[in-house]
Amino acid sequence: MTYKATVNVTLKKSVLDPQGKTVLHALEAMGLNQATDVRVGKYFELKLDAAGEKEAGDHVRTMCDRLLINPVIEDYTYKLEKL
Amino acid sequence: MTYKATVNVTLKKSVLDPQGKTVLHALEAMGLNQATDVRVGKYFELKLDAAGEKEAGDHVRTMCDRLLINPVIEDYTYKLEKL
Repeated sequence: MTYKATVNVTLKKSVLDPQGKTVLHALEAMGLNQATDVRVGKYFELKLDAAGEKEAGDHVRTMCDRLLINPVIEDYTYKLEKL
Repeated sequence: MTYKATVNVTLKKSVLDPQGKTVLHALEAMGLNQATDVRVGKYFELKLDAAGEKEAGDHVRTMCDRLLINPVIEDYTYKLEKL
């Protein structure tokens, strides 16, 4: 079966996010001052083959832990959807 | 009221994603060959003040259209959550 996994990667709360701060300042400079905080992260969309949802989840976690994520400074969440 | 908005940005389907292809090849080179397609995007987490959910949505769309997104090559989806 084919699954679509969406992975959201964020910097850990304790890690400074200069890119987010820059975006926040840029928004303010444009007069869009409703935002009080911005954090920038990464987003992955994967299509993968697996026998079931449990196996698909295992694959996604392995890929994240071994390649996609830096566990020292990043957190991630993922969602699976059957195609 | 304070809202948290999460914005997922992806390249449009018709736009080539060399970064995604590179990640896919790297996964395969590591023996993780369950993935058949990878697309890489951006993820924004915003905190913003607004009178209500409709206004918060308006603010998020304005920020995306004017700064966060390149509408020529990117699509985005967002979710709002009341804090």
